[in-house]
Amino acid sequence: MRKVAILGIGQIRVDEHWDKTLLEMAGEAVFAALNDAGRDRVEGLFVGNMLASQLDKQSHLGALIADWVGFRGIEAMTVEAACASGSMALRTGVMAVASGMLDSVIAVGVEKMTDSPPHETTAALATAADADWEVIHGITFVGLNALLMRRYMYEYGWKHEDFAPFSVNAHANGAKNPFARFQRPITVETYKKAPMISDPVNLMDSSPIGDGAAAALIVPVDSIQKRGGRPLVTIEGSASAIDAVAVHDRHDPLWLSAAEKSSQRAYRQAGVGPNDIDFFEIHDAFSIMSALSLEACGFAERGQGPRLALDGAITPQGSIPLTTLGGLKARGHPVGATGMYQIVEVVQQLRGEAGAAQIDGAKIGMAQNIGGSGATIVTHILKARG
Amino acid sequence: MRKVAILGIGQIRVDEHWDKTLLEMAGEAVFAALNDAGRDRVEGLFVGNMLASQLDKQSHLGALIADWVGFRGIEAMTVEAACASGSMALRTGVMAVASGMLDSVIAVGVEKMTDSPPHETTAALATAADADWEVIHGITFVGLNALLMRRYMYEYGWKHEDFAPFSVNAHANGAKNPFARFQRPITVETYKKAPMISDPVNLMDSSPIGDGAAAALIVPVDSIQKRGGRPLVTIEGSASAIDAVAVHDRHDPLWLSAAEKSSQRAYRQAGVGPNDIDFFEIHDAFSIMSALSLEACGFAERGQGPRLALDGAITPQGSIPLTTLGGLKARGHPVGATGMYQIVEVVQQLRGEAGAAQIDGAKIGMAQNIGGSGATIVTHILKARG
Repeated sequence: MRKVAILGIGQIRVDEHWDKTLLEMAGEAVFAALNDAGRDRVEGLFVGNMLASQLDKQSHLGALIADWVGFRGIEAMTVEAACASGSMALRTGVMAVASGMLDSVIAVGVEKMTDSPPHETTAALATAADADWEVIHGITFVGLNALLMRRYMYEYGWKHEDFAPFSVNAHANGAKNPFARFQRPITVETYKKAPMISDPVNLMDSSPIGDGAAAALIVPVDSIQKRGGRPLVTIEGSASAIDAVAVHDRHDPLWLSAAEKSSQRAYRQAGVGPNDIDFFEIHDAFSIMSALSLEACGFAERGQGPRLALDGAITPQGSIPLTTLGGLKARGHPVGATGMYQIVEVVQQLRGEAGAAQIDGAKIGMAQNIGGSGATIVTHILKARG
Repeated sequence: MRKVAILGIGQIRVDEHWDKTLLEMAGEAVFAALNDAGRDRVEGLFVGNMLASQLDKQSHLGALIADWVGFRGIEAMTVEAACASGSMALRTGVMAVASGMLDSVIAVGVEKMTDSPPHETTAALATAADADWEVIHGITFVGLNALLMRRYMYEYGWKHEDFAPFSVNAHANGAKNPFARFQRPITVETYKKAPMISDPVNLMDSSPIGDGAAAALIVPVDSIQKRGGRPLVTIEGSASAIDAVAVHDRHDPLWLSAAEKSSQRAYRQAGVGPNDIDFFEIHDAFSIMSALSLEACGFAERGQGPRLALDGAITPQGSIPLTTLGGLKARGHPVGATGMYQIVEVVQQLRGEAGAAQIDGAKIGMAQNIGGSGATIVTHILKARG
């Protein structure tokens, strides 16, 4: 198996891009990644997207985007795994390059969510849950996360405000990221006074949707001749796992078994453990997801995710910095693009190019992307080489 | 790169399966493939599907189907490339197995189209065309193929009835396939008298939609210990390429450049040429597509696709038998599943298990799956080993 490196990254700010089409957004991220890599062509373009067929009445994005950026004749496809579509597109690219079938691939995550009426976007997002057993009862993803958070608070005795540090940290970090949708810090008071959405999930527990695109260009490590003094970022671990889509079908709704399985596989591939990870781009779609993911990936004991946050471990100076460029909460969550934003941000940190948000001595970074309420979980571990 | 073999296949009859859910359909095909392979577990399940998020309000099929068949914890995703989604799921599985990342994958194509009102299905299918430049004008896929067929007839002087043999051959072959939606032969008269849909495309130029699921289980060739005397089918070529999605954007609308590129790549990988192919599961969504594909893949001179058909070369006894188990025209075209039906049928032929439809001495078979009106084209070449 050939080892794979990320040679170029590109992203646009997560925002309400009413003036840009989905193709224009994807194109900007792709061109930025090509430019960053110093390449003008790739052999494959894999798209991570969840909603375009519903909200834009456009499927077949692989061919469409590849042609839009001028790559007629290459290989292209779309990969979908709900909100984990972005990182799954990268993982598919890693398979293609690692196998030797392709020598260069761009994975691009793209999502356009704010042109549609909110009820349509909410209904489209709900297709990631189990249509026959969950959505039919009218529940949305906010509702599903509220059920999980309520039960978690009951089981382990946490108060709602104990989750505040996840949100406060994300917004503090997002304030240093020019690509973040929200670039203003918030206080614990802001968190506590935020409007309730689905009790106990309030507005500050919830990541915002948005329009966005992020891309990475991958090649075999052996093919890289020179890289101008910048650290090379290699993909040391890439794994995914599934659990039941419907929350009630899981053996243990408060344990993200797919996060455990995919992170354990990625740790094994990379030859590392949780203690070796310098920072973690976690899938903080809702604050309860951060707590559950920290526990399933071995950073906290069961039921003790909020403890890490309350102790300051998740801040840039802490033992396991989270959401270092704002996370889903502040950078924004354009669903099919989110996984690629996480990858791009890990590369920024590992190269020392994260600006004011830079984590000192970041050498090994992890990104975890979650589809649905925990049904598909993709974990990547990236490393900086000298 | 590890060489990949198809160890098991499974399919259900293409039909109006109003009594079965999408999960039940996919499950039947997966269980049949497992049973055929003598396995009870795989490491990955890759789904080819185009329409479920629109027609069933269900995305996230990878996790959903993998859990449905009892494989909680494995890796799963959905791959979409319009009507080429099925074979693209197989190709992604080949990448995973060839790279060494996974040791066994089931690729399953599944589509449920007949539960929805026809106008919704037609609109959902149209998302495979360019929403901004084609669909906005109200054109459907029948219309796009009518434009191509009309121009082709004008350029090369063919009459409508010259295309009859494609349809007659498909229905004659489908009559021998218990999994085909239509199992009755038709005559040239039936073809000529068929109701016009979009001039010059009539009902007998058009493949029917349907509900269906087909699956294949793949493993590395080296991992196979015994196979009970049946020929082993290996994947010798696997390639895909794109062209512009909008027909008017192509340099030459009557030349399927993506078919040429993907077939040339597959020929090169397999070390064969068109003359070595014993039979060809062609993407006969419309009869014009058969003619264009034969030409782009090197079986006929430009403009001469119908000549092969008129000369009888495409029948089971001809030099290049097409649609040997009915093709899209008679077996049916459940879009995201079609590519996997083609693969399953090639395996049936290469193993000598095609029953009354068996092609004598079939050793090398080709399958080609087309997304949109020619924008994504995936070609596989399979071979029987002793």
